[in-house]
Amino acid sequence: MSSSGLTRPPRTVWAPAGSPATVRIIDQRQLPWRLVVEDLRSVQDVATAIRDMHVRGAGCIGATAAYGMWLAAETGCPLDQAAATLVATRPTAANLAWAVGRMLREGATLAAAETIAEEDIAACRAIGRHGFELFEQRRRQLGRPDDAPLNILTHCNAGWLAFVAVGSATAPIYASHDAGRPIHGWVDETRPRNQGARLTAWELARHGVPHTVVVDNAGGHLMQRGQVDIVITGADRVTRQGDAANKIGTYLKALAAADCALPFYVAFPTSTLDWTLADGRDIPIEERAPDEVTWIDGPDADGTPHTIQVSPKESPCANPAFDVTPARLITRLITEYGACEANEKALRQMIPQGPP
Amino acid sequence: MSSSGLTRPPRTVWAPAGSPATVRIIDQRQLPWRLVVEDLRSVQDVATAIRDMHVRGAGCIGATAAYGMWLAAETGCPLDQAAATLVATRPTAANLAWAVGRMLREGATLAAAETIAEEDIAACRAIGRHGFELFEQRRRQLGRPDDAPLNILTHCNAGWLAFVAVGSATAPIYASHDAGRPIHGWVDETRPRNQGARLTAWELARHGVPHTVVVDNAGGHLMQRGQVDIVITGADRVTRQGDAANKIGTYLKALAAADCALPFYVAFPTSTLDWTLADGRDIPIEERAPDEVTWIDGPDADGTPHTIQVSPKESPCANPAFDVTPARLITRLITEYGACEANEKALRQMIPQGPP
Repeated sequence: MSSSGLTRPPRTVWAPAGSPATVRIIDQRQLPWRLVVEDLRSVQDVATAIRDMHVRGAGCIGATAAYGMWLAAETGCPLDQAAATLVATRPTAANLAWAVGRMLREGATLAAAETIAEEDIAACRAIGRHGFELFEQRRRQLGRPDDAPLNILTHCNAGWLAFVAVGSATAPIYASHDAGRPIHGWVDETRPRNQGARLTAWELARHGVPHTVVVDNAGGHLMQRGQVDIVITGADRVTRQGDAANKIGTYLKALAAADCALPFYVAFPTSTLDWTLADGRDIPIEERAPDEVTWIDGPDADGTPHTIQVSPKESPCANPAFDVTPARLITRLITEYGACEANEKALRQMIPQGPP
Repeated sequence: MSSSGLTRPPRTVWAPAGSPATVRIIDQRQLPWRLVVEDLRSVQDVATAIRDMHVRGAGCIGATAAYGMWLAAETGCPLDQAAATLVATRPTAANLAWAVGRMLREGATLAAAETIAEEDIAACRAIGRHGFELFEQRRRQLGRPDDAPLNILTHCNAGWLAFVAVGSATAPIYASHDAGRPIHGWVDETRPRNQGARLTAWELARHGVPHTVVVDNAGGHLMQRGQVDIVITGADRVTRQGDAANKIGTYLKALAAADCALPFYVAFPTSTLDWTLADGRDIPIEERAPDEVTWIDGPDADGTPHTIQVSPKESPCANPAFDVTPARLITRLITEYGACEANEKALRQMIPQGPP
């Protein structure tokens, strides 16, 4: 089932009541042109939705995989096989293995999946509160008048679409906007899949947050010219020493923030932590199909959709999907437990029950 | 007049014999899909061709403007008025004011324009020789076997299309390839106008140079993982202290090169030097139409061209066209006189007749 022209669902993934067992997602590939929901009824449906990026983003992948494990149980698919299938879909994403592992341990029930989804929302809300405080500190540090916006640059989409709701990098933006604090977002387009231009810009527009889309090349220049106050991104996997894998190009923005003496924040729920790794260079980096670089889709002036070629057929493309920002370039990690420096000691001190 | 399916013209701009006086260019907006030449017969034609980027790139803009001044003389357009019109088309480009000023001083004759074009070619050839030496030094420094490629990352197009022929950043690549030295180019797509994917990739493919197109976000990751040996770009304006304005995003690649201890070279003929400026922050940065970010054109799978939207209508875009790489991030400047460190003293010592 799919339908367009929907009002915004409150969540990116949920289980509608009724039979057969169904997981409902927003097919994010259709945004911003159409808001389409899709029903998943098997582990294979879920694996395809994650691999082909109908859903994407740390928390959204994790929760969708959790519901997928429930579907496995409901459809009689062996859980170990379902787990292996789901974990293999996106090699860099930490939340995937975390959510699948938890469903294996806690029983692949709907209630367990709902708990993961609810915790994701609660974690993002807490990130919003902690990030809001950092944004307010930055306003004070800059002596920014109350009627002048704080300028926040973000890369890719770590918005509510990337989680179950709320988002990580966008949570403090929404919290600030909702508190009546003027804020303006610089939205990196985020080639090759344009999650910034297609998803973050759409989210911010729907929420009424002033924003401007720029190509990924522009952020360094904006920082040099004093037009950015804070850079904040999400993460797909964070090691115990605070190295953060995130959408390809994040490292370049972190370098520019450091060069321009700007704070660079990485916001993520601790479900994104991979405590087994110290050095970010050990994070596996997903290499996606070159077609994502060569072809791009969108509507023409009449609204008719087309998929067009943007580089010559004779030229091969490479498409690494993530890069790793070393901890030394990160000013603060922001999690549901608070904000801390990007190192193991600070992470250990911040997480009350100890490392995951 | 325009025609497609041409074999490659030997130059990007020239004056075909005959009457009326004509300047012929390659309409680079059509590449790589079609090779189309366009005839310009007035200063207005030339101004439009430069402003709307039928031609672009430091040397190509300069030479086209020089021919434009000859057209002004031929068509009875006051030279001071023609000069003002042409110089206003692209505010960041140093070669534009340089070429127009020289035509004003030396007489707006065809011979003077031909001299500027010939000098541009000779300068690019010399850049190729000096850059080749640096590439060979780098091979030796890395202990790279003779049968293994040197990996060169470049941003935007500083190829023969950006000059009258040969190119600046590509000159050492072509020189190496022609000398039988294995070389591989990483080609930044270069949003928003995709001059890397559309022009540099096309150039390298036609020249038989192995290359791979990547999105602008990928270069830092490739450098971190040891897949890049040298970064080399052109420049649109270089100050006397060695700060270099170049296509937006160049600064981010220079930061990554510095962070990964890789050489970052900027190659340009000294006609790109602006000796009146010391600090690159004083270089005017052209802001181009947001439509360049929002819309993109290319052929669909059947070869039918379309122009499609890549960000939502509700979201404003900003489009700064250049950024400035500070001299401290530049390993060597490569000009027709040789390679030197990026500072005023080194530039003065290298240029035999003194600063321009």
